[in-house]
Amino acid sequence: MTEEQTELRPWVKLAEMAEQDDGEALDAFLDEMSVGDTARAISRLEPEGQEKVITTLPPQDAADLIEELPDRQAADLLTKIPPHDAASILEELPSNQLADLIGLLDADRAEQILTELNPETASKFQRLAHYPPDVAGGLMITEYLSYNETTRVQDVVNDMRAHAEAYSDYDVQYTYVVSEKGALKGVLRLRDLILAPGGTTLSNMMILDPIHVQDTAPLDELAEFFDRHQFIGVPVVDKTRTLLGVVRRYDVEEALADRSGNDYLKSQGIVGGEEFRTMPVWRRASRRLSWLSINILLNIVAASVIAAYQDTLSAVIALAVFLPIISDMSGCSGTQAVAVSMRELSLGLVRPFEALRVWGKELTVGSINGVALGLLLGGVGWLWKGNLYLGLVVGVAMALNTVVSVSIGGTVPLILKRFKVDPALASGPILTTITDMFGFFLVLSFATLMLAKLA
Amino acid sequence: MTEEQTELRPWVKLAEMAEQDDGEALDAFLDEMSVGDTARAISRLEPEGQEKVITTLPPQDAADLIEELPDRQAADLLTKIPPHDAASILEELPSNQLADLIGLLDADRAEQILTELNPETASKFQRLAHYPPDVAGGLMITEYLSYNETTRVQDVVNDMRAHAEAYSDYDVQYTYVVSEKGALKGVLRLRDLILAPGGTTLSNMMILDPIHVQDTAPLDELAEFFDRHQFIGVPVVDKTRTLLGVVRRYDVEEALADRSGNDYLKSQGIVGGEEFRTMPVWRRASRRLSWLSINILLNIVAASVIAAYQDTLSAVIALAVFLPIISDMSGCSGTQAVAVSMRELSLGLVRPFEALRVWGKELTVGSINGVALGLLLGGVGWLWKGNLYLGLVVGVAMALNTVVSVSIGGTVPLILKRFKVDPALASGPILTTITDMFGFFLVLSFATLMLAKLA
Repeated sequence: MTEEQTELRPWVKLAEMAEQDDGEALDAFLDEMSVGDTARAISRLEPEGQEKVITTLPPQDAADLIEELPDRQAADLLTKIPPHDAASILEELPSNQLADLIGLLDADRAEQILTELNPETASKFQRLAHYPPDVAGGLMITEYLSYNETTRVQDVVNDMRAHAEAYSDYDVQYTYVVSEKGALKGVLRLRDLILAPGGTTLSNMMILDPIHVQDTAPLDELAEFFDRHQFIGVPVVDKTRTLLGVVRRYDVEEALADRSGNDYLKSQGIVGGEEFRTMPVWRRASRRLSWLSINILLNIVAASVIAAYQDTLSAVIALAVFLPIISDMSGCSGTQAVAVSMRELSLGLVRPFEALRVWGKELTVGSINGVALGLLLGGVGWLWKGNLYLGLVVGVAMALNTVVSVSIGGTVPLILKRFKVDPALASGPILTTITDMFGFFLVLSFATLMLAKLA
Repeated sequence: MTEEQTELRPWVKLAEMAEQDDGEALDAFLDEMSVGDTARAISRLEPEGQEKVITTLPPQDAADLIEELPDRQAADLLTKIPPHDAASILEELPSNQLADLIGLLDADRAEQILTELNPETASKFQRLAHYPPDVAGGLMITEYLSYNETTRVQDVVNDMRAHAEAYSDYDVQYTYVVSEKGALKGVLRLRDLILAPGGTTLSNMMILDPIHVQDTAPLDELAEFFDRHQFIGVPVVDKTRTLLGVVRRYDVEEALADRSGNDYLKSQGIVGGEEFRTMPVWRRASRRLSWLSINILLNIVAASVIAAYQDTLSAVIALAVFLPIISDMSGCSGTQAVAVSMRELSLGLVRPFEALRVWGKELTVGSINGVALGLLLGGVGWLWKGNLYLGLVVGVAMALNTVVSVSIGGTVPLILKRFKVDPALASGPILTTITDMFGFFLVLSFATLMLAKLA
């Protein structure tokens, strides 16, 4: 195949190379590819091809590849290869990613792989496994340097020299100082080691009682911690103050980005985790459908308001043109308010109990925009049929329903959050159902009152 | 006021303290507050109160406060205080944030503040100002350590010792080695300095020809770089290989999180930057309205399809109940496909030229879900009026329009991206306008064909 084809469809070349069983050439080829291209190429291979690629690579290189893939895709890949191979690859991953990936496997497969891990890695996993992924314990890495408080600087330097190879993957920005029992006593920056005489005991030069977080600290607390402090990592301790690991700033940033990505997906109706187009079609269709079927039921409920006014509609058929417009525009106005509330909630600029304050703020914006949209739509109604009353009915309904929809859109996320319901998930359907019903009701009840002037 | 009130409404206390002109007490009070609370409290103060707080604090503490606020809010605050005070605060910020904030000010105000900056800071800003905020040059910090290649380890350690205070704010994870002319020659990790004898010349121990990025490298490239490499920072060079600064991993992660947050806001109709409820009401209303007015025009265009079939509607008034349902549900199905495409685009799992492939993938999902939703809605139509043909009309229209909407939803983001139009912004309105028009057309033209059976 030509070079251009390789560039556009690198998975074809990838599959060929895997067939030839040459791990090193395969690794060199993958090294040349960008992360996105790698993930894309892997996902386009048939299952056998994927298995072939990942088992042909040496475990360390396969682990590098696994690290580059989105977690869900990586876990799927680990399910397709023999447990022994999966275990060799997992051995090479940092502790937090190891725990995340095993956590995504189904229970049987996870069990099979765990028995193949070497005891040290398995016990590392056991320590991390009971933490949810979005608390300090689930985000921390357990690869860090710590020394007893009685150690001298020279001994630390000697130890680092002796284990230079093993520590090279560590994130050694800080060195932690612990008591005999493993309790966190102090911290040293690497530069402190450079500046101190070799004979100094760590306890005499360390920063005492360093800032730390509990293993149970949730992501929001960690985000706030790193907003407030310019550190690149923070030690994690348990209730007895025993040092357990280190949470790095960029792992927190990454978790936050993931969460906001997931909130976006949820708000758009992709529920129950990410969807990739490489997933089986039935799984994709049924997961989307679960969301759609709730929405269609809510839609039918809302439309039943129209059914109750069939006589009015028959008399003034022009109204049927305006119903979808009012429904859609109220959705638009309300969605803007939802987005501002979601953003302010995530930045901590507003608290769930402040729904009333938000409502006040939305009322003014909603009134201004309601009047503007009402005048516009009312004008269209008036000009189209040359009937001022038709314009009045749709214009006033549009204006009022805009006020209602920004009120609901602004406050519902706060109220849901207060009652511990995920606002990314539920705000949209609640908003559109209520504003649809209310919008239909306004147009059709006004029209019924003015029927003599309209027909 | 009671302690509980202080906790719920800390800005009242804040305003009181600012009145008393006690910078230190104010700083101590702010130190006790969480980042979210601080931002919230500041935003609730009247303009004079905000000005009072920020000018009462010592510049370094005011800078810490500014760093905690969202950029937009921080820039607004800097606009409200005298240029001289703003300049003293900006002096204390890291270079990348300095450039970001000045970039958000209007031109006059920025000019006033620039003349008040000390020449060194002003020239630092000038070097950064011509970079867009989302390329390496705009994201980098210029606070880093670099030494000439002929320097000895002992001299580096002495320099670090002598400037320990000045460097304490630096991000000294790496030390860069440069030529006489400032070209990047090598890099040292701090631990290398610890492990090397003091007499060693840097050029003899540095990692040669270190990995670096161009100052023009866009955010996507940087994200990919940090995905691929486990570094916490990367040196930035210009075309002549002169070292300009350092991009840190977490600044990249933060920029990515900001972008995905902004994409979410744009997709929900908050266009032209973030909106905070503390902004003036007219500004909020008019920015939202600019988006709404485009949407209402598109809606009127779509609804004109209904107007063309008024006779059919008059004959079968029940159809009016189903029009908003079909419009809304097609929006839902299409939005799901948009979200999956946006996500796959941002992960690099799909490229803009692959619209055809995505379309194929969506066709199957759309057909399955279209049949399911069509059966459901068709069943409702049949049972409600006891007319099988009504069920057929709405069911088939629903099914076909679902296929159309997922086709458009899946492919439009890729096509927009290919033509350099922001898909977060334009996908939604394009999707709903086309699916509305097509949905209305399907229901009403089928109904017209079957009018004899329906009426």
